[in-house]
Amino acid sequence: MKIKAGIIGGAGYTGGETLRLLLNHPQVEVSFVQSRSQAGKPVTTTHTDLIGETDLIYAADFNQPVDVLFLCLSHGESKKLLSEQNFASTTRIIDLGNDFRLGDKAGDREFVYGLPEFQRDKIRQAKNIANPGCFATTIQLGLLPLAQAGLLSTVYTTGITGSTGAGQKLQDTTHFTWRANNISAYKTLSHQHLGEINQTLKKLQPTFGGEVNFVPWRGDFTRGIFVTSVVTTQLTLDEVLKRYEDFYASHPFTHVSNDTIDLKQVVNTNKCFTSLEKVGDKLAIHSITDNLLKGASGQAVQNMNLMFGLDESEGLKLKGNVF
Amino acid sequence: MKIKAGIIGGAGYTGGETLRLLLNHPQVEVSFVQSRSQAGKPVTTTHTDLIGETDLIYAADFNQPVDVLFLCLSHGESKKLLSEQNFASTTRIIDLGNDFRLGDKAGDREFVYGLPEFQRDKIRQAKNIANPGCFATTIQLGLLPLAQAGLLSTVYTTGITGSTGAGQKLQDTTHFTWRANNISAYKTLSHQHLGEINQTLKKLQPTFGGEVNFVPWRGDFTRGIFVTSVVTTQLTLDEVLKRYEDFYASHPFTHVSNDTIDLKQVVNTNKCFTSLEKVGDKLAIHSITDNLLKGASGQAVQNMNLMFGLDESEGLKLKGNVF
Amino acid sequence: MKIKAGIIGGAGYTGGETLRLLLNHPQVEVSFVQSRSQAGKPVTTTHTDLIGETDLIYAADFNQPVDVLFLCLSHGESKKLLSEQNFASTTRIIDLGNDFRLGDKAGDREFVYGLPEFQRDKIRQAKNIANPGCFATTIQLGLLPLAQAGLLSTVYTTGITGSTGAGQKLQDTTHFTWRANNISAYKTLSHQHLGEINQTLKKLQPTFGGEVNFVPWRGDFTRGIFVTSVVTTQLTLDEVLKRYEDFYASHPFTHVSNDTIDLKQVVNTNKCFTSLEKVGDKLAIHSITDNLLKGASGQAVQNMNLMFGLDESEGLKLKGNVF
Amino acid sequence: MKIKAGIIGGAGYTGGETLRLLLNHPQVEVSFVQSRSQAGKPVTTTHTDLIGETDLIYAADFNQPVDVLFLCLSHGESKKLLSEQNFASTTRIIDLGNDFRLGDKAGDREFVYGLPEFQRDKIRQAKNIANPGCFATTIQLGLLPLAQAGLLSTVYTTGITGSTGAGQKLQDTTHFTWRANNISAYKTLSHQHLGEINQTLKKLQPTFGGEVNFVPWRGDFTRGIFVTSVVTTQLTLDEVLKRYEDFYASHPFTHVSNDTIDLKQVVNTNKCFTSLEKVGDKLAIHSITDNLLKGASGQAVQNMNLMFGLDESEGLKLKGNVF
Repeated sequence: MKIKAGIIGGAGYTGGETLRLLLNHPQVEVSFVQSRSQAGKPVTTTHTDLIGETDLIYAADFNQPVDVLFLCLSHGESKKLLSEQNFASTTRIIDLGNDFRLGDKAGDREFVYGLPEFQRDKIRQAKNIANPGCFATTIQLGLLPLAQAGLLSTVYTTGITGSTGAGQKLQDTTHFTWRANNISAYKTLSHQHLGEINQTLKKLQPTFGGEVNFVPWRGDFTRGIFVTSVVTTQLTLDEVLKRYEDFYASHPFTHVSNDTIDLKQVVNTNKCFTSLEKVGDKLAIHSITDNLLKGASGQAVQNMNLMFGLDESEGLKLKGNVF
Repeated sequence: MKIKAGIIGGAGYTGGETLRLLLNHPQVEVSFVQSRSQAGKPVTTTHTDLIGETDLIYAADFNQPVDVLFLCLSHGESKKLLSEQNFASTTRIIDLGNDFRLGDKAGDREFVYGLPEFQRDKIRQAKNIANPGCFATTIQLGLLPLAQAGLLSTVYTTGITGSTGAGQKLQDTTHFTWRANNISAYKTLSHQHLGEINQTLKKLQPTFGGEVNFVPWRGDFTRGIFVTSVVTTQLTLDEVLKRYEDFYASHPFTHVSNDTIDLKQVVNTNKCFTSLEKVGDKLAIHSITDNLLKGASGQAVQNMNLMFGLDESEGLKLKGNVF
Repeated sequence: MKIKAGIIGGAGYTGGETLRLLLNHPQVEVSFVQSRSQAGKPVTTTHTDLIGETDLIYAADFNQPVDVLFLCLSHGESKKLLSEQNFASTTRIIDLGNDFRLGDKAGDREFVYGLPEFQRDKIRQAKNIANPGCFATTIQLGLLPLAQAGLLSTVYTTGITGSTGAGQKLQDTTHFTWRANNISAYKTLSHQHLGEINQTLKKLQPTFGGEVNFVPWRGDFTRGIFVTSVVTTQLTLDEVLKRYEDFYASHPFTHVSNDTIDLKQVVNTNKCFTSLEKVGDKLAIHSITDNLLKGASGQAVQNMNLMFGLDESEGLKLKGNVF
Repeated sequence: MKIKAGIIGGAGYTGGETLRLLLNHPQVEVSFVQSRSQAGKPVTTTHTDLIGETDLIYAADFNQPVDVLFLCLSHGESKKLLSEQNFASTTRIIDLGNDFRLGDKAGDREFVYGLPEFQRDKIRQAKNIANPGCFATTIQLGLLPLAQAGLLSTVYTTGITGSTGAGQKLQDTTHFTWRANNISAYKTLSHQHLGEINQTLKKLQPTFGGEVNFVPWRGDFTRGIFVTSVVTTQLTLDEVLKRYEDFYASHPFTHVSNDTIDLKQVVNTNKCFTSLEKVGDKLAIHSITDNLLKGASGQAVQNMNLMFGLDESEGLKLKGNVF
């Protein structure tokens, strides 16, 4: 019998990507897609590419019984929703927002931070998942093996993100005329994902002082995150590489490349690629993801797979869009 | 003594480009830049690239005495403004909108259609100019020599425009995430520039039936228009080429290329390049412009130069942005 | 038992996309991927995004017994290969090049033109397939219902293509610095796909004079084709729409949209969307595809599915890349 | 009397931009443009946008008497040329390559490092100029005031560059299909500009240990460099800002913005914008330039202006291409 899934907030980017993944997932049946703004209209009204694939109508109501509920809401709205609505205790919840990533509960519901490469076993037992942020996922996957080995000191990170990271709302910084061929910095050294990044790193390496100096940039592309973190280490490159390869050996989506990497290798997939370079005592770790997939909806489905005992990759063997 | 110029509606794209041109124009002094929404703020608030070039403050008032007034307003607003305000009769007006292109007057003010390649002498005598539309300019410059020779029959035209053609307002079709890597059609066979195009062509060739079948596309770039028109003709390519070269020989900005042309050749310049190809009895005419310069502010300054007896190219020898 | 497939010319774009599709196809096993230039190296050397998905090594030899062979070669090379090599007569061949689209045979092998919307039943019986060209597919899918109804007269078509259409070879017109933000025309009124387009249209409508006036443009994006064809017709829009909807009702990948369409709706999918608009007696038909999928490798796999009696959509329910 | 200028290596990007600037420079006459590969052809053969602006023919010979010679050659070629050719000792030489930036001489010719914000007076007296690299210019302009104040410690810098930085040669990383929508790192922590950067910083701050940890990225745009450097400092943001404003007060092209900056503010201009942000004890300095102008040809002309006693901005008041 298939897993019954509901999506709340289905008209945005992460709601739409979650829907696209679930429509093709062999073990899932989409019970409903809710959208306040689009209720009553076909989902193809907003996700126009799905013509020919689905006849679903956006639901106004979201309290239909399902096995798993994906919350694809703006920050703060998940908490509000769960305080106002009672969902069956048997319904598992995967929140793609940032409301529960730092340990907050919703009534009795406790949330497990859903980064499989960090705590896959805990996710398998979880009832509720706080799905990691996109920059948070990409930066952490570049640093986890070092933290586990207790080797992290101050980190200098620059990351660049596609425009989908800023959501669907029209704003000056997502106007095509402004953004095309443009680069800019934002939330310099103060991005909201630093909290969850430091939380994970300190769990793995309690001595870590929590200094990730992170400068995010806006890129002139729609999808993907490219991150380079620079740290100081006395280990040789081979020693570090060995740790990364061992750490990720059992993880189907995160890979250590022996070659240079470029962002499009992972676009439209659930993959994360990392690569390492060392000069003097400085180690540079590059890591890349698709911010809407491994950085959001793909990882959410990966977490669902783990929670329901499915193969971790089910429904996630996606044809990339590398050229 | 320098020409005193005022700009009304200075915060948008065409207002901004007009300002950029006039700031570097050796014969012009910018008396004021008006903007209702930005009054009291430095023009560098919106045109942030002008830091270090100008200390002008947006004016609320626009009735300061000037020699020439550039109206950079939304369609319909120029007519409204001129019906409400009395500008000195000695003030020349160049309207970049479409309110006066089809012969409408503003009180006593008559407007000359400001396409120099069509009627340069009339522009030299004009008191007021209706500056042509961007697609209208590009399409007409591809067809004028044929119309003058009485050779036009039905025309099939496709044109693609950059996002600046849609203005500064945030809209779904100028959202970066939507527009990047995307192509779409709009106003198929019914673009508002067809009126002025047909008006010109019929003046040159009274027998022309006025059938320009024009399909506009939105492109995934910010600047420029590329147009291909296909017509039927019995003339050889050489015969047609000769007519084009003769027609444009005395015009400093419009050139007939003997090679293939590509859009970036004219980006950030006031130029128009055309090229011609013939197969069987079908002639294809390609023409390209920068929609904000030859298609708007550059042509407006060119018209100003002509009206004030200056060299047609004064202030318009721009370094292009070809790569 | 799975279908055994071989790919010849696997290092290019269409070879790579065919491989990506077959790796995820539930009924197919990739027996080998041949590449002369890459023989002996892992396929991830060139298709670097496939790290973690396959350990295949490029084969030098291509004469291993398989059920189906995909030829992903430059134009002219398929004919050469089949004249030099003997493949088992039980091996079905799908040629993605243009060598056999106009009726040429390879020894005893006859090729069926593989446009399922035109002749699906014939494809089901075929032993060898000449896979259509990318522009040819997109233009034909915009015109088939009119031709079937005998309603086609002179056609004026403009189409724009992504850079992958030009292949992997480095050339001036695929240099990033040149192509970014640029538009240009090429092979004006003389594109090599006109032969196969006219061949199909004349089969459906023997009275058709074969005049498709086609102007191809190079776009500043990597994937996809957007085409607008303009024809003259006395039918109402509703009458035409009805014919298109009926024509494509049973075809899983080609859809008639009631709304405006934009290129990214079909990128990274095997779909074709069409939409129709009418002004006066002029009908504009827009049609869009992904040039590497419905325009090449996706259609090749669709043809394979038909030839082997599988569901036409098997392995082709792809997550698009719409934003 | 105008300055007579010659360009050697005129067919590439920096040669072309130098030519475009000099053609519009009121005090300069271009005596010749040399190109080995294009000798005898019109310069419009390669710089096709210049149709209508110049009839110059590429020269084979470069030993015509001129007042100033711009060397726009590949790295290593300037040194070779000057060892083989004798240019008049009165001819000033501006080398845009990296052959003489670290103190090497060509016979008797000594070269002054041509960063006006660092040593304008020395440039005014110079006979020969080693024009700085593009990343070197952008990074240094972000750090000069700190170094002058003796406040620099370890620097962590990430920079992203447009494709023109990689030159005109066709290569895998400048293929449009690869580079569009892509980001990648290269020369991680080992970029060749580190030498000249450290040379300048140590001259200003002899205690500086020379540790600029620089990660360069390739961007998916053609023009411009965006750099963020992070340093540790106990000064308040206001104290630092004051130093930057004082330092650049007399320099016409480099500005300290009080607002966020974005790359397109300086594209197609000779400007550099910087902006500063501070969180805790970490200071982030953003700096932006057009790599071909302030990062190459524009700065070369600025240096020429200084050497010949002209206004520093002569011929460099360019209309930007901000949208």
